[in-house]
Amino acid sequence: MSVVSDLLERVSEIGNALLPGAATRDAPLEDLCERLASGRGEATGLALAGRVLDRLEAMDDAARVEAFAMLAERFGPNRARLEAAVEAWRAAPDDDALARAVHFSSEPRSQELVRRLNSPPGATARLVRLRAALLRALRENSRLEGLDRDFRHLFGSWFNRGFLRIQRIDWSTPAEVLEKIISYEAVHEIRGWEELRRRVAAPDRRLYAFFHPAMPGDPLIFVQVALTADIPGAIGPVLAEDRAPHPAEQARVAAFYSITNCHEGLRGVSFGAFLIKQVVEELSRELPRLRTFVTLSPIPGLRAWLAGGAPELSDEARATMAAEPPPPDALARAAAVYLAEAKSRGGPLDPVARFHLGNGAVLHRVNPEADASERGMAASWGCMVNYLYDLDAIERNHEAFAGEGAIATAPAVRRLLPRR
Amino acid sequence: MSVVSDLLERVSEIGNALLPGAATRDAPLEDLCERLASGRGEATGLALAGRVLDRLEAMDDAARVEAFAMLAERFGPNRARLEAAVEAWRAAPDDDALARAVHFSSEPRSQELVRRLNSPPGATARLVRLRAALLRALRENSRLEGLDRDFRHLFGSWFNRGFLRIQRIDWSTPAEVLEKIISYEAVHEIRGWEELRRRVAAPDRRLYAFFHPAMPGDPLIFVQVALTADIPGAIGPVLAEDRAPHPAEQARVAAFYSITNCHEGLRGVSFGAFLIKQVVEELSRELPRLRTFVTLSPIPGLRAWLAGGAPELSDEARATMAAEPPPPDALARAAAVYLAEAKSRGGPLDPVARFHLGNGAVLHRVNPEADASERGMAASWGCMVNYLYDLDAIERNHEAFAGEGAIATAPAVRRLLPRR
Amino acid sequence: MSVVSDLLERVSEIGNALLPGAATRDAPLEDLCERLASGRGEATGLALAGRVLDRLEAMDDAARVEAFAMLAERFGPNRARLEAAVEAWRAAPDDDALARAVHFSSEPRSQELVRRLNSPPGATARLVRLRAALLRALRENSRLEGLDRDFRHLFGSWFNRGFLRIQRIDWSTPAEVLEKIISYEAVHEIRGWEELRRRVAAPDRRLYAFFHPAMPGDPLIFVQVALTADIPGAIGPVLAEDRAPHPAEQARVAAFYSITNCHEGLRGVSFGAFLIKQVVEELSRELPRLRTFVTLSPIPGLRAWLAGGAPELSDEARATMAAEPPPPDALARAAAVYLAEAKSRGGPLDPVARFHLGNGAVLHRVNPEADASERGMAASWGCMVNYLYDLDAIERNHEAFAGEGAIATAPAVRRLLPRR
Amino acid sequence: MSVVSDLLERVSEIGNALLPGAATRDAPLEDLCERLASGRGEATGLALAGRVLDRLEAMDDAARVEAFAMLAERFGPNRARLEAAVEAWRAAPDDDALARAVHFSSEPRSQELVRRLNSPPGATARLVRLRAALLRALRENSRLEGLDRDFRHLFGSWFNRGFLRIQRIDWSTPAEVLEKIISYEAVHEIRGWEELRRRVAAPDRRLYAFFHPAMPGDPLIFVQVALTADIPGAIGPVLAEDRAPHPAEQARVAAFYSITNCHEGLRGVSFGAFLIKQVVEELSRELPRLRTFVTLSPIPGLRAWLAGGAPELSDEARATMAAEPPPPDALARAAAVYLAEAKSRGGPLDPVARFHLGNGAVLHRVNPEADASERGMAASWGCMVNYLYDLDAIERNHEAFAGEGAIATAPAVRRLLPRR
Repeated sequence: MSVVSDLLERVSEIGNALLPGAATRDAPLEDLCERLASGRGEATGLALAGRVLDRLEAMDDAARVEAFAMLAERFGPNRARLEAAVEAWRAAPDDDALARAVHFSSEPRSQELVRRLNSPPGATARLVRLRAALLRALRENSRLEGLDRDFRHLFGSWFNRGFLRIQRIDWSTPAEVLEKIISYEAVHEIRGWEELRRRVAAPDRRLYAFFHPAMPGDPLIFVQVALTADIPGAIGPVLAEDRAPHPAEQARVAAFYSITNCHEGLRGVSFGAFLIKQVVEELSRELPRLRTFVTLSPIPGLRAWLAGGAPELSDEARATMAAEPPPPDALARAAAVYLAEAKSRGGPLDPVARFHLGNGAVLHRVNPEADASERGMAASWGCMVNYLYDLDAIERNHEAFAGEGAIATAPAVRRLLPRR
Repeated sequence: MSVVSDLLERVSEIGNALLPGAATRDAPLEDLCERLASGRGEATGLALAGRVLDRLEAMDDAARVEAFAMLAERFGPNRARLEAAVEAWRAAPDDDALARAVHFSSEPRSQELVRRLNSPPGATARLVRLRAALLRALRENSRLEGLDRDFRHLFGSWFNRGFLRIQRIDWSTPAEVLEKIISYEAVHEIRGWEELRRRVAAPDRRLYAFFHPAMPGDPLIFVQVALTADIPGAIGPVLAEDRAPHPAEQARVAAFYSITNCHEGLRGVSFGAFLIKQVVEELSRELPRLRTFVTLSPIPGLRAWLAGGAPELSDEARATMAAEPPPPDALARAAAVYLAEAKSRGGPLDPVARFHLGNGAVLHRVNPEADASERGMAASWGCMVNYLYDLDAIERNHEAFAGEGAIATAPAVRRLLPRR
Repeated sequence: MSVVSDLLERVSEIGNALLPGAATRDAPLEDLCERLASGRGEATGLALAGRVLDRLEAMDDAARVEAFAMLAERFGPNRARLEAAVEAWRAAPDDDALARAVHFSSEPRSQELVRRLNSPPGATARLVRLRAALLRALRENSRLEGLDRDFRHLFGSWFNRGFLRIQRIDWSTPAEVLEKIISYEAVHEIRGWEELRRRVAAPDRRLYAFFHPAMPGDPLIFVQVALTADIPGAIGPVLAEDRAPHPAEQARVAAFYSITNCHEGLRGVSFGAFLIKQVVEELSRELPRLRTFVTLSPIPGLRAWLAGGAPELSDEARATMAAEPPPPDALARAAAVYLAEAKSRGGPLDPVARFHLGNGAVLHRVNPEADASERGMAASWGCMVNYLYDLDAIERNHEAFAGEGAIATAPAVRRLLPRR
Repeated sequence: MSVVSDLLERVSEIGNALLPGAATRDAPLEDLCERLASGRGEATGLALAGRVLDRLEAMDDAARVEAFAMLAERFGPNRARLEAAVEAWRAAPDDDALARAVHFSSEPRSQELVRRLNSPPGATARLVRLRAALLRALRENSRLEGLDRDFRHLFGSWFNRGFLRIQRIDWSTPAEVLEKIISYEAVHEIRGWEELRRRVAAPDRRLYAFFHPAMPGDPLIFVQVALTADIPGAIGPVLAEDRAPHPAEQARVAAFYSITNCHEGLRGVSFGAFLIKQVVEELSRELPRLRTFVTLSPIPGLRAWLAGGAPELSDEARATMAAEPPPPDALARAAAVYLAEAKSRGGPLDPVARFHLGNGAVLHRVNPEADASERGMAASWGCMVNYLYDLDAIERNHEAFAGEGAIATAPAVRRLLPRR
């Protein structure tokens, strides 16, 4: 890979040399983009793409919002082509070829622009960061949605799961990758190299990351696993500094205690259940005695839901939740209602629940005193949940969820719900 | 990579087990495709994709033409969605967001279908072969063009040049890759391992191939280079079994004597000048004394153009070409006219000329007695041509070509052309 | 590895520059060796070592015999040191430290010389070839035995089995290694790449080679395996071009049909049973259903023994062997007597029998019509033998063989032997 | 490598199963060693070797001294064989072959024992640690010297420099190797990962390590380099946390500020000047503008020499050194005398000086206020020295040093020495 990057860098330098300085250094950004999108020679193209990326990265946020707005506006579909295609299709609405022509004629020019921006070495990672900025800008300017859709569409194609590679991260992994793991971990912070060592090099711990060939050494997502005798009900013992490791060959349970998306700029590009299944496969192969695959997950939206009135909760239940912190059994019941019944757009309100239940997992157990960390208390009064991945039921659950929004719950959870 | 493939295979097996045999083994292909496109669970999806590919591969050509026609017809854009989006846009034709919405609403469902077909391990290579079949079918059924456009569009995105890796092929390359090189070479046949050895392991020969991570070990395109003292004027001495190798460090010329596209199914997916530039960079780095980068290329369309009347030729010139074979100097003059003046859709009629001149190369020299092979005689009475890659002039030539269709010619070629 | 070699080459070049040309180019070989052994600076040492190797390689055989004789004579133990050490020890013969001192004081200077010759890149392989020449010279000059012992002693230490690496050779192996396999195979000739492919890439064939880090890409020994349903009784079907491969997972038998020592210069450096056991382990891991590990081996000394009178054979048996070729059952009986009873220095006369029986294998079956090749007929009238590796009995057999010279025979073989 | 280790482990397990528990678990160590040295079957041998190593490692120091003494005593040369060989040689003292026979007949049996102990996976590293224990034991029992000589002799052969591999250590190195670097660094302690990062990943720092194939991931020796504009005169600025990195391409000086031997058990096995030359080559290749290769070295024995009376110093000079700390210029003069004139066994008294001057370096400059660390003050009142590696003079210096004990000094050092 490095050879290619290196070559690309040099090709790019040639292009830089060819680009008349005045014409590009001082040229307005829209002119550079116009030249790039209109497809000049390839060497120049590489250099132009680099310049545009440099410019966008060097801007402050306000200027970048402006630039995004310019791109959204000036690089939309070619209206004349679109109009002609629509006219042709409306004259023969049954002609499928004409309908397809509408599609190809209406491609926003920003798509080709972003494709060309992706040529220089390292551009993919830069575009991913740029989209993170675009997502921030989007909060203030909803007119950027179309541009964001272009990014999402292209990223969906580039980060096709067939191109992703799973890799176990351990103590033989290069330091530069481990360092990224430390900095990306969002769920349960890794405080330095010693803690990292415990998470990747202890015999009963595993960490799997997924990589894309265009971003070598920079993981997209990673999953942390504890091999245990029983389904864990709290995060403390899992992360404890002084715990005695469990012999991996004797483990019956693989607990996924942290799943981290590394790049905000890839939001909406789903790697989905697929990745968890790969990890399950990998573990099953190494340790054929594993029987149970389960998560130990946070409930990030619980307190916000409570603060917002928790309409799915009975008045009585809501009253018991007034104490700070609330008593454990009341907390468990409230969490069960939140996870199983609080919905938004047809799915669970809680984003982590939406992910796992959408993957076909079962809401297995609610653990009220599970995470005493500041973050855990702030989000859910320290309550956590186990989602169970039962390979035999995954498809059925997934379909019931996708079809009727049905949430699979274990008896222990159902007992916490009010009878209706 | 193999780990991932392996895992995918197993995930796929799980899916196979879940797929009710009757429901898929005997189900009509359109039903399978419908289920796949409508997005069932991922494990089932992998298995479904595998089944669909199996079916399409097992068909005879006639059945496959039928199947392609079914896909083109049933998996076009969703008309209701498209209609709604068009109506909305027509109501506010200046609204760029609505124009973009027309684009995303009109995506043919076949695109999502092909994306999902790409999930199982090895699927990318299978889809590339399938498109080769589609291109053959297209000759008989032009209604398949829309479907082919979907493939081309997706391949363009997947085979993004940022994902390609250049690799030098030599005698330390795995036999399974070398074997593919032998079988793919189309320009100057490689007759067995001994000849291959001469082409990759001689000190004055280089072979560079480009790979995509989803098709490891299977090159997409490769370039063969001879390091020489002077620009070669015939292919015989280049390929001669008993030639004395030229010391690489003394070479001043790198002659690209064969460029092979390995997969018919990637036709129209351009890797372009970019790849040649990478090879030039790679060679320049290894051998800084190289001064001249030039091709020794066939002229595949020369005799067909002559047979078709060669309208660009003067009557007199045409007469001198009646002899079989024609005299060398007449042949050289005719070839010069063909390459520099015979046009089709604004570019050179000859496909190889179109490629190199489009890349910014110069039509450098015509060599009338250059290729005595059967193939060479059949195509061009043994005439070959050198295209020169002058890095300083590449962009200028490319732009003049792209803009005005101008063909850069060296004085030696211009002297062969009639004065006008 | 290549980086190191490269560096060593440059260090060596510096040394070359420092070496006064006249002083070394024309200096007698003994002077160069003397300078090298006496330990001048390291850079000079590398260059000196290279010069000495160059000289020895450039000589014709006669000159080299002279050179070896010079080395044997002039680079023996330091007599004065030895004498002093012996005197000291004889004065106190019970003092172990003094006995050890005799050992270290008597080291032939040729050992240090050869150690220093081993410094330049690629020297190990050159020394291995040089020893092959020494072994040839030894036939004519038995005074070279001491020098050969130095080589054997040092090689025994350098080629310590802890440093050897097993590697499966298959169709993904670099061509330069495969080419060596073709040229080294001595037992059943490999006629070109197509035959090699059948031997390494067929699903029911395996080839394992052992490498040393100082000779990368150059195997020391390799073992060819056929996976079969039954113990093979002839080589023809194993090597047949058109045979249908046996599904590897169904195989119960792994038949070692060729074991090749690649370097004559490593004669006497035993890699022994150890390597076969590694191959057995490797196969057992990949294919747990394998039950039987057996060879299909030539009997290289059978006809020579017959020609020499075959004293272990009864007169009657000898008479039946007069026909050319002899009848199969007589041949089988004679082969059984040869393998089980013809001895030399306490072990089997036949070298292949000595190897396998010494490893603890059992003489399992004699196959009279097993190898119709010219070589097979010339050596043993086409008779071959199976040696069985029964992991449970290997140690017992090995010890009985080492202790009492006992040869383990299967009933089928015992039935062929005369009752005594 | 890991495949081999893995296989060896399994072969070893088979051997374990074959070893009758009672016969080995309770057997005296000498019996196990006797069985191993006498050469039973190979599988058993691997298991026996493992048992012997386990036993030796589990012992406390006193028991291990006993065990070493037993080995030294019982596994000396075979006296009868030695006697016979000596007699034969004395009868014909001019017969070189007989002198050689004395050598081979007197090999201590402990050598073969240690060779066989080296068979199991990981044994080489275990033997290296064992020799470190032997060196400690040697301080109390000089009769172990012979045994230590066996180890040193075998290690000298196994760790032949042709088998060593140089590798640059940087931020892409596996964490498990970096961790070893942190723990081994003896010269200037590395306090955690952040400091390591500065030493290996800063653009003007390099760290090169040497590895042996039988101890993968465990460096034998490593060298730390600072790329600077001028020859550094103090260690503080080199290690400063907040220094601004010097652009590597502009550096003219490569300063070797730390050279660490990682394994006490390899003491006396010289890797010598050779390794420094390799690093010089590596650096020259990467950065052709480097002009000066120099060390910044401690003077570990300076204060001990002063405390011991510093006989080479004039009375006057000695008097000026009474202050604690002494004034810088007096310290510099005393250090110059110590390094250039204090001798032991014909070489410099200071071990670091002996190493570099023996390699052919020049005593270039004495830096009195160079190392304010506790260790630096304790060893040499913070004084450090630069040894210069001038490639053109290295051989000459080395020979003058080896021949006449001459120490090459730069004018700046000579000016510090008293005129005589």
